[in-house]
Amino acid sequence: MRIDIITVLPELIKSPFEASILKRAIEKGLVEVHFHNLRDYTTNKQKSVDDYQFGGGAGMVMNIQPIDDCITKLKNEREYDEIIYMTPDGETLNQSIANGMSLLKNIIILCGHYKGVDQRVRDHFITREISIGDYVLSGGELGAAILCDSVIRLIPGVLNNETSALTDSFQDNLLSPPIYTRPADYKGWKVPEILLSGNFPKIEEWREQKAYEHTKNRRPDLLNE
Amino acid sequence: MRIDIITVLPELIKSPFEASILKRAIEKGLVEVHFHNLRDYTTNKQKSVDDYQFGGGAGMVMNIQPIDDCITKLKNEREYDEIIYMTPDGETLNQSIANGMSLLKNIIILCGHYKGVDQRVRDHFITREISIGDYVLSGGELGAAILCDSVIRLIPGVLNNETSALTDSFQDNLLSPPIYTRPADYKGWKVPEILLSGNFPKIEEWREQKAYEHTKNRRPDLLNE
Repeated sequence: MRIDIITVLPELIKSPFEASILKRAIEKGLVEVHFHNLRDYTTNKQKSVDDYQFGGGAGMVMNIQPIDDCITKLKNEREYDEIIYMTPDGETLNQSIANGMSLLKNIIILCGHYKGVDQRVRDHFITREISIGDYVLSGGELGAAILCDSVIRLIPGVLNNETSALTDSFQDNLLSPPIYTRPADYKGWKVPEILLSGNFPKIEEWREQKAYEHTKNRRPDLLNE
Repeated sequence: MRIDIITVLPELIKSPFEASILKRAIEKGLVEVHFHNLRDYTTNKQKSVDDYQFGGGAGMVMNIQPIDDCITKLKNEREYDEIIYMTPDGETLNQSIANGMSLLKNIIILCGHYKGVDQRVRDHFITREISIGDYVLSGGELGAAILCDSVIRLIPGVLNNETSALTDSFQDNLLSPPIYTRPADYKGWKVPEILLSGNFPKIEEWREQKAYEHTKNRRPDLLNE
């Protein structure tokens, strides 16, 4: 999979890709991530990438020209499955969208910043708009990192133990049951005895029961989906 | 506001705090962000912070001891309003939670990693569990960065123009209307004429209408809240 990230602040988004699972996925050649600094594509002398909005109002708007030039250059080099814009009014990311996206070959992710991008970018270049949740962020960079993380970890071979991703919360519409590790007794707080029993069918039953109770308690909406 | 972030991968989460709005908020002294590496608190020789889960199963679990020691040290130094655990089965972050949290003085954010933390940490130390959305990530670090970004930008003085945050999506349960900037005509794609009219009451009316239509079209659920 190849991911091209277009941003005015590549330095903001880099560290998540230089550590842990994303770093290893890149090193293993399972995913390529390329950052494109919009300032390299602007044709005006000031290298500015934003301007005041027509009609007045607070906040700067990202210009269409550098975005057009960057996307057009990339599209001339290869075919893209999706050109995604990260925006709070997009489709809300969930596990099923992440699962689907992990099967794609080439995607572009455009990070909005400031007040957002000129609407004509959305009308003419973007194929999918994604939000990571109902809250506003300083920019789309962190949202893009979240999208990449949720997708890349699903690519086969990225996680050491593939069953690890399959037993995550949301994969079966159930939240995870409680988990414990050593010591079995910490300052008098004990691990449930069943988990120390070695009776694996019973443990499995206990976990399913706990996952169901936990989901019913916290997120009954998931049980109705 | 003071935010203490406890993590096994401080290097993963640092770059968002070293750029743009978060960097400026820290430089202006409006927020302090401290990173605590859990490995500095482990008492075992291998400096390990995780272990296999009781009862078997894929994925490692974060030990209680280093987390206890780190949180206890911080709590001995000052009072905390909330000790937050980032987890996909927590309360889903939204703008109203971010608004409320921007008024707090001291918070701790514990980032889960691997399969999550020993349940006894959640039972005995955590006061609030927050999810940024219904998808699974490699760890809580990016979630913590998202939470910090959504909260810090609301602290008065952080954004250059305070009205900029107030007109964001979600602050009034409406998505933002479309925005445009120069040029007025880009390759034949034109900005709506009303925005060039200079008639500000009419422009305001048009924006309200567009925001309502956009919300009704994309997120009718917001209109019923």
